[in-house]
Amino acid sequence: MRIEILCTGDEILTGKTINTNYSHMAWRLGEVGLDVVWGTTVGDDREALLKAFREAATRADAVIVNGGLGPTVDDLSQEVAAQAAGVELVLDQEWLKRMEAFYTRRNRVMPPNNVKQAMLPAGAEFIDNPIGTACGFAVNIGKTRFFFTPGVPRELKKMLDEQLIPRLLKMSGVESVTRLKRFHSFGIGESRADQMLAGIEALANGVEVKLGFQAHYPQLETKLAARGANAEGLARALAPVEAEVRKRLGNFIIAEDDQTLEGVVLDALRKRGGSLSVAEMFTGGEIAARVSPIEGAESVFRRGVISRDLAELSRSIGANASDISADSAATLATALRRGSGASHALVSLIDLDQGADRIEFGGTICLGIADADTTVSRTARLQGGREWLRIGAAELALDCLRRHLLGLPVDERVDFERR
Amino acid sequence: MRIEILCTGDEILTGKTINTNYSHMAWRLGEVGLDVVWGTTVGDDREALLKAFREAATRADAVIVNGGLGPTVDDLSQEVAAQAAGVELVLDQEWLKRMEAFYTRRNRVMPPNNVKQAMLPAGAEFIDNPIGTACGFAVNIGKTRFFFTPGVPRELKKMLDEQLIPRLLKMSGVESVTRLKRFHSFGIGESRADQMLAGIEALANGVEVKLGFQAHYPQLETKLAARGANAEGLARALAPVEAEVRKRLGNFIIAEDDQTLEGVVLDALRKRGGSLSVAEMFTGGEIAARVSPIEGAESVFRRGVISRDLAELSRSIGANASDISADSAATLATALRRGSGASHALVSLIDLDQGADRIEFGGTICLGIADADTTVSRTARLQGGREWLRIGAAELALDCLRRHLLGLPVDERVDFERR
Repeated sequence: MRIEILCTGDEILTGKTINTNYSHMAWRLGEVGLDVVWGTTVGDDREALLKAFREAATRADAVIVNGGLGPTVDDLSQEVAAQAAGVELVLDQEWLKRMEAFYTRRNRVMPPNNVKQAMLPAGAEFIDNPIGTACGFAVNIGKTRFFFTPGVPRELKKMLDEQLIPRLLKMSGVESVTRLKRFHSFGIGESRADQMLAGIEALANGVEVKLGFQAHYPQLETKLAARGANAEGLARALAPVEAEVRKRLGNFIIAEDDQTLEGVVLDALRKRGGSLSVAEMFTGGEIAARVSPIEGAESVFRRGVISRDLAELSRSIGANASDISADSAATLATALRRGSGASHALVSLIDLDQGADRIEFGGTICLGIADADTTVSRTARLQGGREWLRIGAAELALDCLRRHLLGLPVDERVDFERR
Repeated sequence: MRIEILCTGDEILTGKTINTNYSHMAWRLGEVGLDVVWGTTVGDDREALLKAFREAATRADAVIVNGGLGPTVDDLSQEVAAQAAGVELVLDQEWLKRMEAFYTRRNRVMPPNNVKQAMLPAGAEFIDNPIGTACGFAVNIGKTRFFFTPGVPRELKKMLDEQLIPRLLKMSGVESVTRLKRFHSFGIGESRADQMLAGIEALANGVEVKLGFQAHYPQLETKLAARGANAEGLARALAPVEAEVRKRLGNFIIAEDDQTLEGVVLDALRKRGGSLSVAEMFTGGEIAARVSPIEGAESVFRRGVISRDLAELSRSIGANASDISADSAATLATALRRGSGASHALVSLIDLDQGADRIEFGGTICLGIADADTTVSRTARLQGGREWLRIGAAELALDCLRRHLLGLPVDERVDFERR
């Protein structure tokens, strides 16, 4: 089945708004096995919309139109849809009542121009939007089914998942449920992960698995998407693939699904009734800023200390470190732990390159971690410019702490590292 | 002149990559008075590309094609361009030499499949890419001029500004230079800024000014774009408009053009030979993380202290504060300044709402600033969920410090504030 996405609106056309609705829809549809083959963007312009609808009708079996369902004069989707389908616009009394109730619940009176949102092409299939005033609908233009959706991302996402995907799967003859499993890793580049996971799709029992990657430095997201007849069977079929991903990416997996690295660290500390203090040089508060504001961190995060200067940092901690080294990081971690009364301390020092920012700009990161029993340390050189280095250093530090808390080796080489 | 943008590539089509190239191009062209009227997205598919080129040729005067100029088999732009234009592909010896030199400079041998990147449609106009191996080119398909550009954002941006925009302006009969002036503000919402700046376009002397806004919470970017015959005349014509923006948005302007709030704060401190220490509760290092890693901050940023707990924060600073209040913030700022030997100290305390994260979740922020002569403080309630609050609180704190350093009132109400 050939699916197209048609995005409307001057804000998208002129580039004022980045078109994340498009990428969300295309990705989500791909996950359930529905492939988008064409994308079109036009503005709030009657002539362009009509032309776009007519052209899409010659190419596709199904078209998702996004935007243009609002109450203002530049929202033209219903009107042009009716014109293209060769029908009149009629008032949907049911939706009008729903909108009035929507306003009443908020103690407001519905502005008269909202009535426009209840005008649908005659014979259109109504598609519910339980969280907004722009209802969706579907009509045929030529032999092509057009689905009209609201531009508000929250409303679109809900309508796509709950209303459109079931209809499109039915149109395409596929009746199934989907499963999306996500792994977040740190330290493995996309091409190496691709090699490491070669062939794992074949481990699924009787379902087709789609393997995908999304790199958002310094993390890599590995996705498994699959379709099956029912949720239990699908989970069972995917289990060996998921287990194999865990085995092959191993210690580099920092979190799964909606977990975050800082959340995993916090949980590991919380489980043992632990607490954390952090000292940072170049990352300048980034490590602390990721952990300390999390819900529940108030009982775990104890103290953060920041300085760009080693002597000043040592003074703040009440210790003595004479050079930037793994030993100094360990010494400071021990002192910080004791001084702040935390169960764990993490110290991140950096020997920064000299000169102007450039792609080869880097630094040597020295990490120290102390708990009641032991200290560990780790040295790594990262480069790629100041900002790249800052983000990478914070990630490396948090990941070392995660590894230490989970009993994993802290000094496994990461792909971003130069030695 | 009707301009279209045609984006190619499976990563864009499937939504794996968000199409920021499109929005950059459309916005940048709009700034110089060239309006994009249609956007198309297709994948790395010969048939779809050919269809897309032919359809665009019936609609537009100029088409910018993005992507598909790489060395791999799925990069099809040159080949399909030649087919659509009805010409052969020929090897561009000049570009081949340039590519070989590119690799030699990096002490590498050019892989053989890169030769493909020097194959251009016969008679194509060469468009230089001084920073990559994918050269641009232009051909006619029907009566429409097609410009082919690389998918790498850095290369595209440079080619668009230096090569395409001058050609497109010439095609459109407009010979002119452009000026883009940007103001960054904190504390004024987009709709209020729009009202405050009503009518300012009319103050320009004989040039048309386009006023635009881009909200990236908590900052608002106000843009003035104009075209004129020459740079000096344009700067003169825009000067009264720029002065009026400064006057009307006043103290809320935190930075202009490429400046940042943290950069302005750092500069103000550096100019007076000052230094800074920071103590944070809920922002948890975010304030420090914005200032301390900047180039040159090593001589200014002195110490950062973080805790979620007031008693622990007080202890770290060596002071005594018994409640979360403006007075406590001022007391701690004074002690932190003295203890760390900095010329200035900024303290950010927070009384956080209880319960789960939700849209009404907020907190009361108490800020204290101390220098050698005085202390100032400020209290504000922000809400909008934990993350919104965290980012807003850091911005408010840095902005208060900026205001204090520049001799402006620190307690002007911001739009995000609830009282």
